[in-house]
Amino acid sequence: MSQAIIGVDLGGSRIRVARLDQDLNILERQETATLADEGPDKVIGRISDLIRAVWPKDGTPVMGIGVSSPGPLNPFTGVVLAPPNLPGWHSIPLAQILQDTFGVTTYVGNDANVAVLAEVARGAAKGCKHAIYITLSTGIGGGVLIDGRLLLGKEGFGAEIGHTILVVDGRPSSLEKEAAGPAIARQTRVRIARGEQSIIKQMVGGELARIDSRIVSEAAHQGDELALSIVRRVGWVIGLGMVSLLHLFNPEIIVFGGSVSNMGEILFEPIRQTIRENVLDEGYLNGLRIEMAALGDNVSVIGAAALVTTMGGFNRLLE
Amino acid sequence: MSQAIIGVDLGGSRIRVARLDQDLNILERQETATLADEGPDKVIGRISDLIRAVWPKDGTPVMGIGVSSPGPLNPFTGVVLAPPNLPGWHSIPLAQILQDTFGVTTYVGNDANVAVLAEVARGAAKGCKHAIYITLSTGIGGGVLIDGRLLLGKEGFGAEIGHTILVVDGRPSSLEKEAAGPAIARQTRVRIARGEQSIIKQMVGGELARIDSRIVSEAAHQGDELALSIVRRVGWVIGLGMVSLLHLFNPEIIVFGGSVSNMGEILFEPIRQTIRENVLDEGYLNGLRIEMAALGDNVSVIGAAALVTTMGGFNRLLE
Repeated sequence: MSQAIIGVDLGGSRIRVARLDQDLNILERQETATLADEGPDKVIGRISDLIRAVWPKDGTPVMGIGVSSPGPLNPFTGVVLAPPNLPGWHSIPLAQILQDTFGVTTYVGNDANVAVLAEVARGAAKGCKHAIYITLSTGIGGGVLIDGRLLLGKEGFGAEIGHTILVVDGRPSSLEKEAAGPAIARQTRVRIARGEQSIIKQMVGGELARIDSRIVSEAAHQGDELALSIVRRVGWVIGLGMVSLLHLFNPEIIVFGGSVSNMGEILFEPIRQTIRENVLDEGYLNGLRIEMAALGDNVSVIGAAALVTTMGGFNRLLE
Repeated sequence: MSQAIIGVDLGGSRIRVARLDQDLNILERQETATLADEGPDKVIGRISDLIRAVWPKDGTPVMGIGVSSPGPLNPFTGVVLAPPNLPGWHSIPLAQILQDTFGVTTYVGNDANVAVLAEVARGAAKGCKHAIYITLSTGIGGGVLIDGRLLLGKEGFGAEIGHTILVVDGRPSSLEKEAAGPAIARQTRVRIARGEQSIIKQMVGGELARIDSRIVSEAAHQGDELALSIVRRVGWVIGLGMVSLLHLFNPEIIVFGGSVSNMGEILFEPIRQTIRENVLDEGYLNGLRIEMAALGDNVSVIGAAALVTTMGGFNRLLE
């Protein structure tokens, strides 16, 4: 008998909830604003309302609820610790609350971990057992699938790709501090303030504070040399981070998501070149695919539902 | 009925072969010089002779043979590619050769991967499911256990901890290039050649080429400021590498082996301090143990035998 799965995407600005079948096809989807400033009780109330809205009306049993949430969180207990973009959330036992309300097993996973499950189940990494998902955005997050299993670590804090350490100019830095959106904006501001020429100065009407990674991307696509040099350096740093991940995980595929990855080839060309120039052995590149995420806005509800079919990502995704 | 396991430690200078019981207790051990310069046929002949010497005489069945070998190698096929310290070895199907000779299932694993299996089965990480083993020696190698399973990757090239990219002061460098034995010697030579004062100059009779990491360690233990500053920098670099590994793997324990780790507290104090100062969140340090390897010369034969009980490390070590 077929069963339904409820997938919940709890984001800082939107909540999306879907009913899916066991093959992770979305059957119905609802969404609303998170209004995170109203605090956890109101937000959980909105999640519950949407779950009721998509709950099967024909008596189809529900296998479980999966929730994609911003981290940090403990995937083993389903407790959300203190996400920066969910004000007022401190050690909220979200899995337990939803499980008590709806009477079905509930799993909570961090959004980047859940994304790798989704891309492997239905997206760019379909069918892969060794996959890395990287989101390049305000931060850099990651999810790693090893032999079909999610990399979590002892307390579920693993796979923090953005926080791998790089020593830059003698001081420790991280992939995130050097290559996420705010770093791109900061590096551009500094170089324009130093007097380097760029069309970006005109694009923001001289207000350097308005520079963000999207504007840098636009300028780079128009051939602006400063913007191109910033993007190339970011690609170089990300490429070096990927080399470390290739040496550690020897994956089949690296999938890039997040707003910064929308820069496209001007970013990916230096990433690929840096990988080729720095990898230890050709064996790591043998069949390696580097691709863009394929699931767009649905990545989190699909991945959340995949948490249910893999029992929190603890079991193998593909047997 | 009890079964025996044969563990083989194929090293660049010594071959050690043991018969173990299913609990990985060593029952009998034999060893000989590798004489690697004589090429693969002679070396495999010596391995086979030692296997015959420890083979059970009382009809006890042999469950399998496990071999610890220098990498690179493919643990799925048991083919040894081209280890720098085994001249003349190019894609030698070692597992197949021994399996054909002795008629029992044979697995081959790289020495650092095998070491983490051994330390978890019988050594410093006994009972851990999330463990990292690092050997600091002429190179930096690693083995990673995730939820009781060896991290291998698509073709078994994973867990190359020494080749994570760390320093990007204009040029990429790696943990191994900055902190292994030869790097320690090189950094010391450069600073003495520049005119810095050190007792090391007298210790090597002015022949800077004689400086190695053991001499730097001795000088540091005698309070030599230059040697101490080199060791502290190495500890800082290794500590930063460990921070990345904590963020990626969230392990219970990091076990250090290899000759450079014999430096002891003068090295581990800066490693621990660097970890404390750079970790993203206290959660990663919760219950974390940092320990020295416990199995000494037996680590490889025990780990090789553990390859058999885990079917090449592909299965969970502890259920």
